Amino acid sequence: MNTSHRTISNVSVDCVIFGFDFEQLNVILVEREYLDPLTGDIVIKDFTLAGYHIFEDEDLDNAAYRILKDRTGLENIYLEQFGTFGKIDRVAKEKDQLWLKLIDQGFADRVLTVGYFALIDSTKVKLFSHGSKIQWFPMEEARKMELAFDHQEILQKALETLRKNVRTEPIAFELLPQRFTLTQLQKLYEVITGNSIDKRNFRKKKLQMPFIVPLKEKEDGVSHRPARLFHFSREIFDNTRNERFGNLF
Amino acid sequence: MNTSHRTISNVSVDCVIFGFDFEQLNVILVEREYLDPLTGDIVIKDFTLAGYHIFEDEDLDNAAYRILKDRTGLENIYLEQFGTFGKIDRVAKEKDQLWLKLIDQGFADRVLTVGYFALIDSTKVKLFSHGSKIQWFPMEEARKMELAFDHQEILQKALETLRKNVRTEPIAFELLPQRFTLTQLQKLYEVITGNSIDKRNFRKKKLQMPFIVPLKEKEDGVSHRPARLFHFSREIFDNTRNERFGNLF
Repeated sequence: MNTSHRTISNVSVDCVIFGFDFEQLNVILVEREYLDPLTGDIVIKDFTLAGYHIFEDEDLDNAAYRILKDRTGLENIYLEQFGTFGKIDRVAKEKDQLWLKLIDQGFADRVLTVGYFALIDSTKVKLFSHGSKIQWFPMEEARKMELAFDHQEILQKALETLRKNVRTEPIAFELLPQRFTLTQLQKLYEVITGNSIDKRNFRKKKLQMPFIVPLKEKEDGVSHRPARLFHFSREIFDNTRNERFGNLF
Repeated sequence: MNTSHRTISNVSVDCVIFGFDFEQLNVILVEREYLDPLTGDIVIKDFTLAGYHIFEDEDLDNAAYRILKDRTGLENIYLEQFGTFGKIDRVAKEKDQLWLKLIDQGFADRVLTVGYFALIDSTKVKLFSHGSKIQWFPMEEARKMELAFDHQEILQKALETLRKNVRTEPIAFELLPQRFTLTQLQKLYEVITGNSIDKRNFRKKKLQMPFIVPLKEKEDGVSHRPARLFHFSREIFDNTRNERFGNLF
């Protein structure tokens, strides 16, 4: 992490970075560990979202892009601000206060944090630890973990926003490779919404959508019968948007 | 404004308070005026959104409810956080820096602000000035005004979010009285979306929605033929939500 910048001590950004491995929705968490320097006992050992204080000399959105790049090396990624968290006591727990003092970014009794979620194709991303363990967790597991600060609440809100927005915006495709099968797309919708979907209906519906474009190629390197590959056409989606949406009620 | 609380100098809340007068979508703006104490010349005279710094001892959401109550007397109002604005230079203009020094809430070179929009039935609301002129402006006029700070950008983003969310959530009804006519509802959708709507289609579609419930009563005190009144049933809406919404694409 570049530390040549001065930070704003009472404002941070936290990124909920979602990925999909064709089986589950996953999220990146960073380990927070502090051992007592005399006894070696574990004082803090838990996980946080990927976050940091904002720099005095950067726009808020740029702080989120910086954190994402810092942890994944990725740029030009889908990133959406989904909420700002500002309960008085959100960093008041003893270990959280200790942690804030340890990371030495100036100290504030109270920190407000702005949440962004990122959607990445996790099949080809490398994570950067910068000295703290960083790893993907299945969302089903992460949502049951005791995370630092109010990060569990932030994670839930990110998922809720993702669930809501996949219904009206074509953001799910950000989680897939450029070329995907309908089975992969269905699985993705299922893990995001938490509901199983009828295969026949799903295929029928998707095949009618002009922006889900069949390719000549099929999967390769699979043991089952290779399925046809598709890609999402942003151009066709945008051009047909008005035909699809009126007021919904 | 209650000033017995200490404020956080680099974080504020701004409320975009929308109302509907059966003709236009309106928004509340507060005048900001400063005269040179020696010459009496106008140094600052423009408008801002209804906002304030957050207090050290209140949750972020409560700051928004406080500002809303302080300006309208209303509680239990529909309020939605729609974005946090944190460009480095958002309060850097000379008159904005002067104003921040004048209002004496502690001074910060840089202030991040959290935007909330409120939807109120403006037909029966009274505005509280607390020494600054406060008034409703038609949205069409407000969006062309030069507002303080980045408030024009915040206002646009609020409208954009409202436009998007009225398609999927029944929030437009917050802007209407308990009992309304279909003509009023249509006009409301027209002024929010900026598009005219075909009357016959609109009525047909609305009459099929079980949560738009016809009442026995009709309008009174109108010069035209009195129209039937309707009300929105939140209960029916919630109970029928799953029938209406699948994935939209």
